[in-house]
Amino acid sequence: MMKGCGSNGEATPSTADGGVIVCVCIPASITSSSSAQFPVLSRALAGCTNHNSVGEAAVKVALEKVMTQALSKAGSNCSDLRAVCLSLSGVNHPSDQQRVLGWLRDIFPSHVKLFVENDAVAALASGTMGKLHGCVLIVGTGCIAYGFTEDGREARASGAGPVLGDWGSGYGIAAQALTAVIKAYDGRGPQTNLTTNILKMLELSSPDELIGWTYADPSWARIAALVPVVVSSAEAGDEVANRILHDAVQELADSVKAVVQRLGLCGKDGKNHFPLVMVGGVLNANKSWDIGKEIINRISKVYPGVRPIRPEVEPAVGAALVAWNRYVKYVKESER
Amino acid sequence: MMKGCGSNGEATPSTADGGVIVCVCIPASITSSSSAQFPVLSRALAGCTNHNSVGEAAVKVALEKVMTQALSKAGSNCSDLRAVCLSLSGVNHPSDQQRVLGWLRDIFPSHVKLFVENDAVAALASGTMGKLHGCVLIVGTGCIAYGFTEDGREARASGAGPVLGDWGSGYGIAAQALTAVIKAYDGRGPQTNLTTNILKMLELSSPDELIGWTYADPSWARIAALVPVVVSSAEAGDEVANRILHDAVQELADSVKAVVQRLGLCGKDGKNHFPLVMVGGVLNANKSWDIGKEIINRISKVYPGVRPIRPEVEPAVGAALVAWNRYVKYVKESER
Repeated sequence: MMKGCGSNGEATPSTADGGVIVCVCIPASITSSSSAQFPVLSRALAGCTNHNSVGEAAVKVALEKVMTQALSKAGSNCSDLRAVCLSLSGVNHPSDQQRVLGWLRDIFPSHVKLFVENDAVAALASGTMGKLHGCVLIVGTGCIAYGFTEDGREARASGAGPVLGDWGSGYGIAAQALTAVIKAYDGRGPQTNLTTNILKMLELSSPDELIGWTYADPSWARIAALVPVVVSSAEAGDEVANRILHDAVQELADSVKAVVQRLGLCGKDGKNHFPLVMVGGVLNANKSWDIGKEIINRISKVYPGVRPIRPEVEPAVGAALVAWNRYVKYVKESER
Repeated sequence: MMKGCGSNGEATPSTADGGVIVCVCIPASITSSSSAQFPVLSRALAGCTNHNSVGEAAVKVALEKVMTQALSKAGSNCSDLRAVCLSLSGVNHPSDQQRVLGWLRDIFPSHVKLFVENDAVAALASGTMGKLHGCVLIVGTGCIAYGFTEDGREARASGAGPVLGDWGSGYGIAAQALTAVIKAYDGRGPQTNLTTNILKMLELSSPDELIGWTYADPSWARIAALVPVVVSSAEAGDEVANRILHDAVQELADSVKAVVQRLGLCGKDGKNHFPLVMVGGVLNANKSWDIGKEIINRISKVYPGVRPIRPEVEPAVGAALVAWNRYVKYVKESER
């Protein structure tokens, strides 16, 4: 019987843009903790997540649709359901949490336990198979570092979007590259092969056409799609591209370190083991210029106990595991 | 008789946001070159300018309206008109110029000479009373440095909007300040009084509410309105605010230097006199932390011949003077 339902943004969630909502249903009796054979009862998809960048009404409609579909595919309905965890980009403040809980309350009957978290929480749980301990670093269009201690304290760094300085994000890296092209063009910065490589990719003939291109469509994901050009330019030896990537690595490592430090995940001597779950397209680039590897190198110099994890299940499964774990804890506490 | 018509964005034009279009009509016989008594025949206003950030149709409607009004107020019509210069933010490329010329051609009969320029051109002309020589630096919500040589070569730096690295702009300064607050909050940066001062101004109770505030309204001008808080924080001795302003001064001085260098405005020995017209709310702050003065200090160390000018007429008068000067030149050339 289906008992847990988890929903999350797509495999590279971010606070920057709306994406795809994934909803999975998992059974109550989780016998296998092996992530490779994790038993998912059903899975459904719908568009749009970030309620900061798309309308609230659109998000509510998409949520109800995807959750109903997942229940239906599992041959189930709300009466079988015990708990739901919705892990959503754009949940940055308790008031966001309360508002989204209100949406869920309209969808589900009162016996269903409801939990709302930032999308980083599901990403962490997807690496730790539901245990909320350690730190997760997500770098897609946006970026965020989020952590939990075993006793439930939490902390985050970054994840505030491009205006508020997420310079390690895919958007941030690409915007710095575009800026470098403009600066080289107008005489404020060194020449760079980014100019040729980016113009070629965008099929533009001159850097001043980048202004029109940039503002023709405000989507952050569209800018972030330039990251592979920055990586390949750096791999080919371009110094400006290299500096941009190293700066991003520094920003991202600083975000993880801030979370680890505040939560004391490294212990008093700084050497305790803790998981660092690495998620998102920018970290999974699998190129010779490996951003994820560089970040781990920097962090392990300060915190040798860091244990990097690349999740084998999707974040939605992480969200479902969080829902289930919290439900079990609730039942135990109420039986006391 | 009215012969020149000039139109321009408002007193602090920028490439960042749409603003107000100002249109003035000036007489053919300009006897006074004294800017204080400049004879304007009529003046009209309308909303919205930047065709990168508002719809093209809306801009065309606003343009036709404001120009018709100005002509009507001057007791005149198109048959009296000799030349129009439209100096518009968002004109960054010859293709922009051609498109906007097309709009004007639909409005005016064929005998009227039409000129389309970036809004920086009118701003320069407002300081030099129509002569296109020297450099202008505009810093409002956006920023741009634009220059002309006496023989008509031109160059620009910055003015590409916030995504493309206009960090010296009002938007850029404010975004850096917001970033500093977020970084102090999540443990990535030093504590700063910007936190208290910005939260107080925005009537928010915690830095994490800044995320919702920032993305609730995408207007760059709304972010840039925080500049006075950054300036007052720096004046009160806050080191983070001071660093942000010094970084902005460096960016802006670099923009001016790039234009001066490319055009050779400083001559071969680097000591030639050239005008530097300073325009925009960020430069006119008139505070003890004087951004404009700091920029001039940096530039005069490299180019001692720099002659700062604060315009006494509005940019629209500058645009009208450009229209008239170009018309006179055209008539002279065709009489040869």
